[in-house]
Amino acid sequence: MKIVIAPDSFKESLTALEVAQAIETGFKRIFPEAEYICVPMADGGEGSVQSLIDATQGSQLEVQVTAPLGDTVTGFLGISGDKKTAFIEMAAASGLHLVPPEARNPLKTTSFGTGELIKKALDLGVEKIILGIGGSATNDGGVGMLQALGASFKDHNQRELGFGGEQLAYLAYVELGGLDPRLATVEIEVACDVSNPLCGKLGATAIFGPQKGATAEMLPILDKALAHFAEVVKTHYQLDIAHHAGAGAAGGMGAGLLLLPNVKLKAGVEIILQAVKLAEKLNHADLVITGEGRMDSQSIAGKTPIGVAKLAKQRQQRVIAIVGSLREDYDVVYQHGIDAVFPIIRQVSSLEDTLKQGRENLISTAENIARLMHLSRMA
Amino acid sequence: MKIVIAPDSFKESLTALEVAQAIETGFKRIFPEAEYICVPMADGGEGSVQSLIDATQGSQLEVQVTAPLGDTVTGFLGISGDKKTAFIEMAAASGLHLVPPEARNPLKTTSFGTGELIKKALDLGVEKIILGIGGSATNDGGVGMLQALGASFKDHNQRELGFGGEQLAYLAYVELGGLDPRLATVEIEVACDVSNPLCGKLGATAIFGPQKGATAEMLPILDKALAHFAEVVKTHYQLDIAHHAGAGAAGGMGAGLLLLPNVKLKAGVEIILQAVKLAEKLNHADLVITGEGRMDSQSIAGKTPIGVAKLAKQRQQRVIAIVGSLREDYDVVYQHGIDAVFPIIRQVSSLEDTLKQGRENLISTAENIARLMHLSRMA
Repeated sequence: MKIVIAPDSFKESLTALEVAQAIETGFKRIFPEAEYICVPMADGGEGSVQSLIDATQGSQLEVQVTAPLGDTVTGFLGISGDKKTAFIEMAAASGLHLVPPEARNPLKTTSFGTGELIKKALDLGVEKIILGIGGSATNDGGVGMLQALGASFKDHNQRELGFGGEQLAYLAYVELGGLDPRLATVEIEVACDVSNPLCGKLGATAIFGPQKGATAEMLPILDKALAHFAEVVKTHYQLDIAHHAGAGAAGGMGAGLLLLPNVKLKAGVEIILQAVKLAEKLNHADLVITGEGRMDSQSIAGKTPIGVAKLAKQRQQRVIAIVGSLREDYDVVYQHGIDAVFPIIRQVSSLEDTLKQGRENLISTAENIARLMHLSRMA
Repeated sequence: MKIVIAPDSFKESLTALEVAQAIETGFKRIFPEAEYICVPMADGGEGSVQSLIDATQGSQLEVQVTAPLGDTVTGFLGISGDKKTAFIEMAAASGLHLVPPEARNPLKTTSFGTGELIKKALDLGVEKIILGIGGSATNDGGVGMLQALGASFKDHNQRELGFGGEQLAYLAYVELGGLDPRLATVEIEVACDVSNPLCGKLGATAIFGPQKGATAEMLPILDKALAHFAEVVKTHYQLDIAHHAGAGAAGGMGAGLLLLPNVKLKAGVEIILQAVKLAEKLNHADLVITGEGRMDSQSIAGKTPIGVAKLAKQRQQRVIAIVGSLREDYDVVYQHGIDAVFPIIRQVSSLEDTLKQGRENLISTAENIARLMHLSRMA
């Protein structure tokens, strides 16, 4: 029997690799002879770099970069085991969690640090960069990131724009000639939510601005600044970045990235599925086990278990999900390839204690699933 | 496929019948053609009368009885569908929950009300009484109960003893001649914990006295009074009630009951298994599902799921438990006939909310177990 274990991480509790290993431990108690393939998964969000490092036997590198408000922070990037691919999470340099709540202000925050992480990846000579852009503190259209990579954005007086979303309103000239020439030789896959446009009611600012600290007064200023940015780009480069799928992701970072050569914006889970070669690993599997920290009706919108299930179902494979918690409205997942789902909580306790018991609860749940499968086979 | 569903109640959440029906509902979504037999179970403790009523299509009867401190309370008893058996919980008349915490005092509390419930059962003309004696407020050796049934307990001055454990110290004469003559024609099965002796370090008073409100000063008084009671009985009737298995149950109620004709003290779950005719219902079952509110290492000591599993394993049947919560040390149940166990909690929330979600969580868990079984069979 070949069992592929491909879960996402359980946030604040276990990495995807730890989740996979706990499931394997529980299963092995009942099926010690089975072949187990652990594939740490992610959806492009928090924990993706860790999962990709674990999936490729890669390593992590720390880098000093510019934080969202211009100070310095220790960011990180991952490098695959074969050194050919770099893994970057925008949040590691430009994340909301790096700015204290009272200081959150997308008029001021910059994506410059993420550009520095990309530059570091170029220094390492990789062929490909996988960039997850969730959890950002910024609404600057990725202009800070582009500045870090050598692009220039100037106002009418030929002065370089400063940091922050409000600066885009003064944009008059875009010069991409100074971009790091190594960008032409590297492929960048951007894992993002591809559903929001750059501007307007469903745009980056309206939907995600408030959680980044934008007040009601700031919202129209930021939205207009992004629209102006897109117009200036269109004028200079005949490039419509505003209406590209994914343009509105991460405060317009999706749009800004389109100014780089060889960039593709894609749904996160698709990128990760390819990066970890899941399709190949699924071959001849008798059972696929996936999972995530919390499963609900939103899980069908680009989360890991459904991505894994989709691939498994193309092969008529059985898919079980093991999850940290399961919300009332979860049962739509049955229509998206999940055959059965088991939450791991064993008793009423605090969130903190429940998160601590994650590994033990996973092992126990996996063991009992294996017991039930063993039992059912005997019938 | 024949599936027998024989769970205990989930205390403070669902009766055993409700638990069984929720499990059936979940299973039927996947196996609509299976034959389902719901058998509400109990272990002689709280909820046993309800389970026995439900299992026999019986009914409940309210009766005004004497409360532990001498006031009046509305108690109840159950009658089987065929009217031949009465079901009584001592706690319905003499329960700790009937006495406010600040008034709990086993020097004063009486089991008289339980005797009145037995009398009511005799009035109904039953052939058998099943009496569960858990949860009592009393430490009176069952003397109050015996008084209600016509026995007489007098002091040196030929005065009838009053209520409460401390009165036993004054006992000089026991007269059983006045006992209700109908007791000779009825069989009484007492569901109790058969492990504690009447007196001493592991006796009724030492182990259960404190939770009934006995202070450190009361404990030796109560223990000596029970010992004196047993001595007087021995002198008058050549009967050693002190060392009989179960004598120490319910503040010596077990010992007192031995003064009635046709009384058997037995482990609760054995009595219930027989009363609901589980053995017969298990015939030709392909799967047995049991459960309880909380499973832990104590579950192997006379709790419902293990009793059910024991019977099922004599028939080489598969046994799954579905439980409200599962404690760290639960895994010893695998050695006692439980093949796999699944807790039903789906998310972190308060105990109150978790109890409210019981039915929904049970249905969901049962459905997913059925899904997994269905999946495993297809392999």
